[in-house]
Order: sequence, then structure tokens, then C-alpha cells
Amino acid sequence: MKQEEVVIKFPDGNEKPFPRGISLEQIAESISQSLRKKSVAGKVNGTLYDLKRGIDEDAEIELFDLSSSAGIEVMRHTTAHVLAQAVKRLYGNVHLGIGPVIENGFYYDLDIEHSITIDELVNIEKEMNKIISENLEMKRKEVSRSEAMEIFAHDPLKLELLESISPEDIVTVYSQGEFVDLCRGPHLSTTRFIKAFKLTHVSGAYWRGDSRNKVLQRIYGVAFASKEEQSEYFLFVEEANKRNHRKLGKELELFMFSEEAPGMPFYLANGQLIRNELESFLRELQHSYHYKEVRTPIMMNQRLWEQSGHWNHYKENMYFSEVDHQKFALKPMNCPGHMLIFKNQLHSYRDLPIRMAEFGQVHRHEFSGALNGMLRVRTFCQDDAHIFVTPDQIEQEITEALTLINYVYNTFGFSYEIELSTRPDHFMGDEVLWDKAEGALKNVLNSLNYNYHVNEGDGAFYGPKIDIHIKDALNRSHQCATVQLDFQMPEKFDLSYVDERSEKCRPVVIHRAVFGSIDRFLGILIEHFGGAFPTWLAPVQIKVIGVSNEVHKEYAEEVTQRLKQEGIRVEPDLRDEKLGYKMREAQMKKVPYILVVGDQERDHYTVNVRKYGQEGSKEIQIDEFIFNLKKSIENRWLNE
Amino acid sequence: MKQEEVVIKFPDGNEKPFPRGISLEQIAESISQSLRKKSVAGKVNGTLYDLKRGIDEDAEIELFDLSSSAGIEVMRHTTAHVLAQAVKRLYGNVHLGIGPVIENGFYYDLDIEHSITIDELVNIEKEMNKIISENLEMKRKEVSRSEAMEIFAHDPLKLELLESISPEDIVTVYSQGEFVDLCRGPHLSTTRFIKAFKLTHVSGAYWRGDSRNKVLQRIYGVAFASKEEQSEYFLFVEEANKRNHRKLGKELELFMFSEEAPGMPFYLANGQLIRNELESFLRELQHSYHYKEVRTPIMMNQRLWEQSGHWNHYKENMYFSEVDHQKFALKPMNCPGHMLIFKNQLHSYRDLPIRMAEFGQVHRHEFSGALNGMLRVRTFCQDDAHIFVTPDQIEQEITEALTLINYVYNTFGFSYEIELSTRPDHFMGDEVLWDKAEGALKNVLNSLNYNYHVNEGDGAFYGPKIDIHIKDALNRSHQCATVQLDFQMPEKFDLSYVDERSEKCRPVVIHRAVFGSIDRFLGILIEHFGGAFPTWLAPVQIKVIGVSNEVHKEYAEEVTQRLKQEGIRVEPDLRDEKLGYKMREAQMKKVPYILVVGDQERDHYTVNVRKYGQEGSKEIQIDEFIFNLKKSIENRWLNE
Repeated sequence: MKQEEVVIKFPDGNEKPFPRGISLEQIAESISQSLRKKSVAGKVNGTLYDLKRGIDEDAEIELFDLSSSAGIEVMRHTTAHVLAQAVKRLYGNVHLGIGPVIENGFYYDLDIEHSITIDELVNIEKEMNKIISENLEMKRKEVSRSEAMEIFAHDPLKLELLESISPEDIVTVYSQGEFVDLCRGPHLSTTRFIKAFKLTHVSGAYWRGDSRNKVLQRIYGVAFASKEEQSEYFLFVEEANKRNHRKLGKELELFMFSEEAPGMPFYLANGQLIRNELESFLRELQHSYHYKEVRTPIMMNQRLWEQSGHWNHYKENMYFSEVDHQKFALKPMNCPGHMLIFKNQLHSYRDLPIRMAEFGQVHRHEFSGALNGMLRVRTFCQDDAHIFVTPDQIEQEITEALTLINYVYNTFGFSYEIELSTRPDHFMGDEVLWDKAEGALKNVLNSLNYNYHVNEGDGAFYGPKIDIHIKDALNRSHQCATVQLDFQMPEKFDLSYVDERSEKCRPVVIHRAVFGSIDRFLGILIEHFGGAFPTWLAPVQIKVIGVSNEVHKEYAEEVTQRLKQEGIRVEPDLRDEKLGYKMREAQMKKVPYILVVGDQERDHYTVNVRKYGQEGSKEIQIDEFIFNLKKSIENRWLNE
Repeated sequence: MKQEEVVIKFPDGNEKPFPRGISLEQIAESISQSLRKKSVAGKVNGTLYDLKRGIDEDAEIELFDLSSSAGIEVMRHTTAHVLAQAVKRLYGNVHLGIGPVIENGFYYDLDIEHSITIDELVNIEKEMNKIISENLEMKRKEVSRSEAMEIFAHDPLKLELLESISPEDIVTVYSQGEFVDLCRGPHLSTTRFIKAFKLTHVSGAYWRGDSRNKVLQRIYGVAFASKEEQSEYFLFVEEANKRNHRKLGKELELFMFSEEAPGMPFYLANGQLIRNELESFLRELQHSYHYKEVRTPIMMNQRLWEQSGHWNHYKENMYFSEVDHQKFALKPMNCPGHMLIFKNQLHSYRDLPIRMAEFGQVHRHEFSGALNGMLRVRTFCQDDAHIFVTPDQIEQEITEALTLINYVYNTFGFSYEIELSTRPDHFMGDEVLWDKAEGALKNVLNSLNYNYHVNEGDGAFYGPKIDIHIKDALNRSHQCATVQLDFQMPEKFDLSYVDERSEKCRPVVIHRAVFGSIDRFLGILIEHFGGAFPTWLAPVQIKVIGVSNEVHKEYAEEVTQRLKQEGIRVEPDLRDEKLGYKMREAQMKKVPYILVVGDQERDHYTVNVRKYGQEGSKEIQIDEFIFNLKKSIENRWLNE
């Protein structure tokens, strides 16, 4: 190998010499024109590189195109620079803050005298498109800190950033046309590679997120690899907004929040009905899986939380109280209470497995900024269970837990993905038990024919676990169910059972949740169904409306009464309003069935049935309608 | 009227002159020999008097016999003196502490070298009976403090009591035979008037209840107006002990308590099943009464509790926490949360009444000494409801609330008494509204043909109320349900609705609870049923036992499966134990039905049914048995 060459190693393991100083773009071109065209940046020995930057040493390389998250981030970052350039061109005296990439897009914080309105974003976009069509080259340059300070002499915010850098450090600046920015890069090689972008909104933001600093103007935008992807994104946003659980929670009168208890949900009647249905559903199912339901106090004393380890490891997230001069904590988890119940009796191997379940109200602190409707709260009800097993029972119990979870998720129409997390570097407990447990989890997943992803070393220090991520109707992922093995809790609480040979043994504990948090799960369900719940969950299942309120009131009430007797949640709409108005309102409330009754229906003892989300309506005998409806409710059908 | 006479006024208002110095006994004799014979003490101008004590001034008098609580207390007090005298006779060197009357009896605290055992109580009783048959006169004497100190020169505890009295005070001493005691009296005239007594136990007690003092020996006894009453009392105690909910709670595995959360119940699986049944029962009933169930957070901030008035008036009973440097309190009541929900929307008169219900977990501090199993806890679930009404709706809503309460109490076989409490001196709100409200409550009670007792002036300052006291199977009274009108809470939270003329009006709030506390109600139910719950409430409703475990196992399992499919809580007993043993165990657990299955039952497809608490058994077709059982469960029958 000559001194003037560097050896480039490709992701597939192949190696090839190239002249020293060769760029990623040139390497790509050496392979194919199409590769060169679609590449936007890359990695050289793990460092992000612009396409045109020279490579001076032997290196492993990787190339990114816009289909990769690294590639699209480069494009979004360049778009942020273009945004700043456009604003400078349009408004003149602008001081640059920072312009990072965020999910789906970017923002730039700018210090401008003029207050930019949402309407002005169109103009800025126009200027940005102009810059893109100018096809300006993004030039990278390494400079010393003092050189950089000269370049940004009139940019006080950039100077502030530079001051926090050591004077010996080399920094990079990127320029395109007349615009220059302090930036680590990398960037697209020219502005024309920006495929699709849109500015979305503008807001105030403290410089560096510190409320003692000046408020800058933050312009947000999104950017995508193609116009099509961008359209899809906006369709998704529109749909997600329509389904937003906070919006629907208000419209459908499901829940509310109050300043007197931030992050702590108040269930209104409709929301509480759904909650009760969810609880009943799981309670019934758990009963048939031989779970035993218990209930433990909301708060317990410091000694208990010290014993469980929460006092040392979870204190930041806990709320405290005091009883008789003893410190108490509101439970963030139900485990310690369940351990006390287990210890309350002697156990023989014949008693195991013990499947202890609780709908336990837990409290966990969250920063107020992190609160998000039902999806991130400070108190929620966990559908928690602890299964106490002998090591030999692990496999069977995990199988049953996963079967139960599968049944529940199918009921709501959720598909899901499974992750298995194995022992971390610093695991606790016996290696043989870990091997056995990990083996058991894999056996179970394999024998159930489940696909799963292994996160090596990502298990808790107390045991391996299976996490389940559901996919909602908008294909968003939510981690809900979890099945965790725990070898440590039984140690900490000195749990034991007596085995066949009358010897004291340590049980293993399986932590298990299906909904995870009922409150959060409800939030997910609202968005998943867009508020149009399946009949068994709907707070009002049926609205009965007379064609003429006066003429058909009696029959409407008769039908209502008949349905009520069958335990169906039915409401007549007897107001003096037009039929059409009443129907629209029922549809707004996403009531699964509207029954319209007129002369014909009264004479035939039928109802005219209109199902939410379906075209047209159908006249059906009342008894037949009830029969089918009850079947749907009892079986918790997703669709009739 | 001559100077040598005093005028005696009788309880019936009659007045009569008597010679000065006359005693209650002589006055009684002047009326009838039988009155003299049954009188044991009396009151003279409001002061308790011995029968033989002379009356020196005009006086209103009252005479007590043993049927009155004042009369029986005099006898119990005298019995305490006789106890002390007997112990002195038997053990010689005894220093007397105090000997007060308590519920059903008395105790005496004594300082003796010798440690008295429970077995020695029989001997002491013998000596007491001897003293009683000696018919010693109880002599009262007034002495100065210094004279008393001479009398009790060798009784250091009595001297200590005398030291706390002012030197000028006159004290009384009572003597019978050789025994003398410092005592306010009054007492029976002679020891022979003690009708029935029994010493029950002995324990240690700090002198004057102060743990820095010496431990004395406290001998407890009971005393009654007749041997029959005493026997009844012991039968009651025996029955109450058998039914003690803490004892049964352990035996039937219903609940437990832990030192890590004193006064905060842990529900075991069996107890939780009953709880869930109680909740479902009321939820179902409330649904048919058009209640709307809600759920509010466990803790809310200081501002809210200040607004509701709890911060000023209930702070001593509350637990506190902190969230984001704001003081929070765990809710002791659900009202403020419900007020926030009401305020969350605008309301028209057409929306009222709004019946808002919650199964709300509240926390209220109790002294650790006051805790008593489920009957007195620090956290409980209230079946709380707030009904928001126009003033015109009060009557109708109170009627419905009482009807609902009546239905619930009948379901458990509780009779009950009603108390109506009217406006106190310092009431809050409009007098006209109070008149109307009190009138409404009376109208309702009258129109329901309910007997009730009026507690004039005993209402809350915020409104009149109806309290309901249930009588359990042992005829003990428990205050559970309450229906309270509240004019103040709507003011404090500035609640309003818009009336027919579009004017803003203040609603009235009705607080309502049926169980009161589900936890306490469960405790009462356990004792009321002695743990033998009606079938619908029983944690295990049926035990299936094969005559021979080996031969009939299959059929026992088939029967079990059949019952399970019908949603019945059934367990087979398939252990290798004798039939008799299994049946005794099922009976110990008070399982409502034991189904024994042998050859005959298998061949006939029948079961041999044995109902708890009933003699004999009966062979019944399985389908018939299931039909009847389900009817009983669905209708929540007390007995089949």
C-alpha cells in the first residue's frame, strides 16, 4: 500500500484503496451514479461527514440517503440554514440563535426587532424556495475560535456560544452564498437537494431555554424526502388533530383537568363509564385466568419503601406525607404492598402460582412541562399483577400472560411488536437462574410463533423482561404491556415457600401489566378510535329519535324503555328540535347507533337503524336488533 | 309554710312539703313501699344523692331504680367498692387507686405486691358475695381535706389524689364495715342491693394513665340489675366475639392490616370479591336512579381546600403532601372535587337535578388508639354522591335518596332508625330556604310513613340533615347513611344555573351516602352475618366434594365446570382427604352451598345440596339447582 492511499472499508466488510483526500461523493460515484445522486452525507470512522469533505486516513465509511433518519436529518438541518438566510435577506438586522433538527423538521431561533406573524411565513417560504433554486453550495471551513469570533463579531448570540468553547478548539462554519453560520454540520452539498419543506408556525422562546434570557422568535418548519411524504405527513397531522384525545375528551365529555390538581385526571360521567367497562373487561378475563384481586393502601411508611428499594432509587418521582410523625410515601408502584400480602401467610409449593392482581392507583411525579393530557399524568390506575412462581413455572405463566395480553389487544384491534430485554452488565442474582429465565422467555416467544426483537443487555438489573408496543390506528407506537421477571424483590422481602422436600425456597415474581396505565390506555383508545368507540365501550350506545317529536314521542319512549330493560345504555332525544339537527348531534357525539322511529316503525314494531360511520339505514325488528346488539356487547366486538 | 319544712317538687310537677332533713328513701316510702324498695339513688336539685342523705332545702327531686342508667351506675359503683374491700380482706396490704364505672360494669386499680391471676378472681368473687350477704350499710361522711388525709395516711395513692384538691374543700368518704374509701358517691344504701356481678379479667394499668407512673393491677367486672340480664349479656358477648370482624376477617381471609400502614386496610382476594359485589350492587342501582359516576383525584392543592373550608375546619384530620413546591392535601371528602366538575360546564335548570356519584377513596386521620379493624380506619372508600338541585327539587330528590337507601338496607336485612336534625343557633344562609328545606324533609319522611326522631338544633350549620342508624343482627346501632342539605358549598364555589327566565340562580347541594364507608360497612356486614354471607356476596359460593375423591373426581370436576360456565364462584375440593373433613372445612369457611356427589348423583346427573346453617341435604337436578341459585344471586336474596 502506498503512502498516498487510504483504505476504505464498506459496511459489507469489503475494503478498497483510494487516493488520500478522496470524498464520500467520489467514493459513491466510483460505485454508481445512482448511489452518488441519492447520497446526502455519510459517516467516516463514526463521525458525520459532508459528502465533499476529504478523507485523510484509513476509514470505515457509511453513506446516507434521505430514506435514513441520519440522511433526512442532514436535509432538515440544511433547511434550517436556508430559513435563517431567507429571514436575513427579508428582514435585514437579524441575530442568529440556534437552528436544530427536531422530529419531522427543524426550527431556528432568531433575534429580530420586527415581530413575525404566521401570515409572513409564506413570504419567507418564497425566499427559501428562491435560495434552493439558486443551488448554493454549502461550504465547510475549519477555523480557530478567534477567527470565528471575528466572523460573528456582529452576532452577539453566536459570540456567546463561542465563549463557552475552549480558545484552543477548532470550530466549523458553513456558508452558502452570502450566508454564514457557526455549525458542526454536516450539510447537503448544495441547497437544491432540499426536496420538500413547509414552515408551520412561529412562537417565542427564551434564548438557551433560560427564562432570565431574552425572548427570541422561533420559526418552526417540517421537511421531507419528497412532496408525497410531506402531504402524507400533513394528512396524518390533520387526522391526529381530529383524534387528539384532549380535544375529544372535551367534546365527548370524557374527562377534565383542573389547576387545583395538575396532571391528575377528573373523570366525567362518560369517561368513567368507559373506565368501568375497561376494568370489568380485565377483571372478568383475569378471573377466568385464575387471578386473585386484592387492594392495598395508597400510602405506606418510609421503612417499607426503604426495604423495597424505592426510597433509594425512585425518590425523585415520589410524593410524601406524614402520619403520626412517621414519613409516608404515596405508592408509585403496587409491588411492595403485594409482597406484604404474600408474606401474610405461609405458602407451600402447592399454592403456587399465586396470581395477585390490583387496579392500583399510583402517584408518580412528572415535570409540569412533560404533562400531556391522559398520556402523561401524575396519578394513574395501574392494572398491575404480581405472579409468584417456582422457577419451573416461569414458562407456563409467561405463556398465559402473553396469551391474555394478546386477547386484550385483539379486542381493541391493536397489532403489536415484542421486545425481549436480556441481562445487563450489572445484573443481580444467580447466573443459572438468569440463563434459565432468558431461555424460558425465548422458548415461550418461539412456541407462540411470535416475532420479537432482542435488546441484549437492556433488561432490568432484577430480571429479563418482555415489553409490548402496540400500534394504533395511525400506526403510532405505544409501550403498554410489560412482563418482567424479578429475582430481587423476593430477596428483599425474604419471600419463601416450602417445596416438596419441606425445604424453604425463594419464589420468582413476575410483574405484569396489560393496559399499563388505564388512564393512558384510555387516552390511546380515544385517539385509536377517534372517539368512535365500539358499542360495548361507548358511553351512550343508542340514541332514539322520533321522526316527529310530537307524534312519535310515545313510541320513542317505548323503544328506549325496552332497550333499557336489556341493560343497554340508551337515551331518547325528545327535545323540540328538527330530526336532522338531532341526528347530526348524535353523530357529533359518535353514538354507535341512531334509531329513527316514525309511523312505519311504530306500526311494524321496528326501528330504523343507522350505524355510525356507515352509509344508509335499515328497518329492523326490535327483537332482532336487540339480539344482535347484545351479542356484540357481550362479545366485545370491534365491529358489528 | 313553717321553717322546719322543705318543699319537694316531683318530676310530674307536683309539690309537697316535708320535714327538713328528710331523705329520698323516706320520701319514696311516703309514696309507696314498692317505690322505696326499687329506688337505689336519686337527684336533688340536679345533684346525685344517696337514698339516706338528708335534704335541707326546697328541692326538685328524681328517683332512680336499676332500670335507669343512673341507677345501674350507682350499683356498679358500689360493686367496685365491694371488690376493693374483698381484695383488702384477702391480700392484706393493698393500696387503693380509683374504681370507676365503665360500660356494663366497673374496674378498680389496686397496688398489691402479689400479682393476681385470672384464676384468683373466683375467690375474690366469693369474698364479694360474702360482703354482699353481710348487708353492710354504705355510710357517707363529709370531712375536710386534712381529716381525709389522716384517714388515708397509709394509702399513698389516695393521698396523691387529695393533694390535687384545694385545702378548703370538703370531701366525702364512704365506708362499709371495716372498709373506707375516698369517693363522691352516691352508693346503694347497703351492699345487699347488688343484684348480679361477675369479675371478668385483670390487667396492668399505669396509675392515672401516665406511663411514667407505677403499673397497678386493674380488676374488671360487670354488674347487672338481675341474673337474667347478666346471662343475656354474656350470651351477647359470646355471640359478638364469634362474629368479631377482625377475627372473621382473618379466618375467612378477607383483609389484613400491616404495621407499615396502620389503619389502612389491605383487601385479600375474598374481601375484595365482596367489596366488588357491594360496589357493583350500588353502581347498578345508582344507574337505574340516574346517577352519573365520576372519579376525582386523591389529592388537590391548598387553594381548593381553603375555598371549601376544610383547610380551616378539618385540618387536624387531614394528611398533606407537596407537589411542585405547592402544598397539597389528600382528600378527606369528595365534595370539592365534585364542585369543580359542576363548574366545568354551564348549566341550565333543564340539566338539574345532576346526581354525581363517586366511589371515592378518602383519607382522614384517627388517633392510633382509636383504630378498630374496619370499623375505624384512616382511609376508606366513600360511596359518595352530590345531587345538585333547584330548591323546588329538594323534596323529590330526598324521597328518591331515601327510597334507594331503604332498598339497599332491606337487601341486607337491616332495620333502621331515622334522625332529622334541624337548624342550629348559628346557621348559615337564608331563613326562608331553611324553613322550606326543613319542611321538605319532614314532608318526605311523613309521606313515606317513616317514624323519625327530631334533633332540634342538631343540623350542620350549612343545612338540615337526615341520619340513618342501622340495627345489626345483634341489635347494635351503626350510623351509616346520611342525606344532608347544603346551602353553603354552592356559595363557596359560586355555583350557578340559569333558570327559566335566564337568570343566574344558586343550586342546592344534597350530600348523600348509603354505605357511608364501604370498608366500615363491610366490617358491619361481617359481624351482622357472622361471616355467613348471603350467596350473592359469598367469596366462594359453592364447594363441590366427591364422596370418594378417586371415584368421583371426574364428575365433581364436570359439575364445577358446569357451574363456572354460569359465572358462579365455585371450587372443587379434590384433595386426598376424607369427605367429613372436607365438609367441616367448607362449613368453617361458611360456604353457602356444599354439593356432595357420589355414584347416585353421577348416575342421575344431580347434586346433593347442603345449605349452610340448615339441617340435612337434598338431591337436586343440576339444572334446577343452577336455575334457583342464579335467581338468588341475581336478585341478591338474603335467604333462598
